[in-house]
Amino acid sequence: MDFEIERIVERARENRARVLQLQFPGGLTRHGPHVARCIKEHVNVKVLLSGNPCYGACDLDYNPKADLLVHFGHAEIPELAARDVCFVEVRSNVDVIPVVDDALALIRGQQIGIVTNVQHIHTLDSVCRHLESAGLRCLIGDGDRRVKYRGQVLGCNFSSARAIDVEEYLYIGSGAFHAIGVALATGKRVIAADPFLQKTSIADVDLILKQRYALMAKAMDAHTFCMLVSTKTGQQRFDLAFKLVEEAIQHGYDAYTVTINEITPWTLYQFPAEAYVNTACPRVAIDDSALFKAPMLTPIEFEMILGKRDFSKYGLDEFSSG
Amino acid sequence: MDFEIERIVERARENRARVLQLQFPGGLTRHGPHVARCIKEHVNVKVLLSGNPCYGACDLDYNPKADLLVHFGHAEIPELAARDVCFVEVRSNVDVIPVVDDALALIRGQQIGIVTNVQHIHTLDSVCRHLESAGLRCLIGDGDRRVKYRGQVLGCNFSSARAIDVEEYLYIGSGAFHAIGVALATGKRVIAADPFLQKTSIADVDLILKQRYALMAKAMDAHTFCMLVSTKTGQQRFDLAFKLVEEAIQHGYDAYTVTINEITPWTLYQFPAEAYVNTACPRVAIDDSALFKAPMLTPIEFEMILGKRDFSKYGLDEFSSG
Repeated sequence: MDFEIERIVERARENRARVLQLQFPGGLTRHGPHVARCIKEHVNVKVLLSGNPCYGACDLDYNPKADLLVHFGHAEIPELAARDVCFVEVRSNVDVIPVVDDALALIRGQQIGIVTNVQHIHTLDSVCRHLESAGLRCLIGDGDRRVKYRGQVLGCNFSSARAIDVEEYLYIGSGAFHAIGVALATGKRVIAADPFLQKTSIADVDLILKQRYALMAKAMDAHTFCMLVSTKTGQQRFDLAFKLVEEAIQHGYDAYTVTINEITPWTLYQFPAEAYVNTACPRVAIDDSALFKAPMLTPIEFEMILGKRDFSKYGLDEFSSG
Repeated sequence: MDFEIERIVERARENRARVLQLQFPGGLTRHGPHVARCIKEHVNVKVLLSGNPCYGACDLDYNPKADLLVHFGHAEIPELAARDVCFVEVRSNVDVIPVVDDALALIRGQQIGIVTNVQHIHTLDSVCRHLESAGLRCLIGDGDRRVKYRGQVLGCNFSSARAIDVEEYLYIGSGAFHAIGVALATGKRVIAADPFLQKTSIADVDLILKQRYALMAKAMDAHTFCMLVSTKTGQQRFDLAFKLVEEAIQHGYDAYTVTINEITPWTLYQFPAEAYVNTACPRVAIDDSALFKAPMLTPIEFEMILGKRDFSKYGLDEFSSG
């Protein structure tokens, strides 16, 4: 794995930094002490490792004591215009072509939209050439200012998929969430190709839609709604939460707003409500819903049950910019 | 319970606040939605409830969206000079005299030092008068700038106890930690009087000392130490952590520093170390030690095992000011 020690050292020297804060997402945290040691071999700095959970570049753990934050594993979010942050994307060096070859058998039409996460973003051109040599037309969309690269998707932003008009998408990456997100955001067929497991599949939105409608049905019996706002740098939808509280009260419900850094079942136990509405990372509501004792809705789902949005047309919660 | 709604409303009006953030310690959090409702009946503000765990006035959850933070259940820490914070101490109205009467039977000498937490701080004068009418001499000490009131102790500060020269202390309050802290900080006998349970006892330091020495013995086998720094407003002992890392390395150990808001077993799992040194709230190391898979020491305990402090004389970790 390339942690770009040289670039970090250079940036630390440029900034005349005396204290660096390193922030890793969960899967990479264990490399922190080693990376810190490598940096300190080359430049005279003190190093702090962030111990707070991190799931994206929307969560920049600035430290008042540090002159420079080094954030690993995610691409910068352009609209956040992060100050004094050195992003180290930690690209994967796995060869994606074999799993793309497997995916060919699942592609139905003549043209396909390609999306991926930052780990594999550098492979998109060769993926396109490869698919085009097999007679397909490839499209890669420009996302909004929430994503840095063409064809990049986040768990909360599928703008690069929506930007192109195709009947089918190929998602390159691991985990089910992003492929399902593209399918929900576009309403189209999505082929998921996992280059680590060398496995292909068709994103299945049925199960998740059943779960979401079941939660919405349960939340319809609620009298009190608790609106959640995260204080993470790129997730602070306070005004949305205030709007939802007003809408809830207009519809005869009781509602209040809780701000919280890390949304967990044990912190929410203290806040009595028959349903929660999560304005923070959409994945908390969707991936973790089974952990919470009361239904946790997205803002769009809440407006669906209020009747302010079409209940029959599921809307995916995204963080979008203009 | 008096949440001082009128004073909060007045302060909100004075500040022309449009958004208030309310912060409660764990035991009071469930009153948040009700208190928010009471405030909004009197003044046109939006209210946010902090959902982050809070154990003291060292942990002020400022919110960028809020004009005023209302912090419940703790007294201000003078040295932190908190800006734009309205402290609501939520004093207890329980009568402490009956349990003080019970404590009389346990007092051996002619004079006694009185300490308590902020919940009962307003009772100290009447406690003194009561004890003096029983023929005792009462002393109440001035603490340092970490505590607001004479005779007040915190889980991390026993300066008001150390300020007086007595052979015995009476601690008024619930829970075992504060009384044991006074005993460890002063080396004197401490009578604990719990006005809620109407129970008296003698603070027993033996068990906790055995536990601490056992953890220190185990940590002596460690090769790698992980130093922990909290980013909570009044707990940021970065320089202490940096000093401890240097001391560890001078003594041939490996060491690194992790900054973290909430120190929990599941966040520390990601940071491999055979021992942790906690520069945050001392109670995390002492109260919660059984939760962590490796020994968690206080900074003083770490220096005891390095041989920089007398190993036979236990030193209690405190946050003290000049």
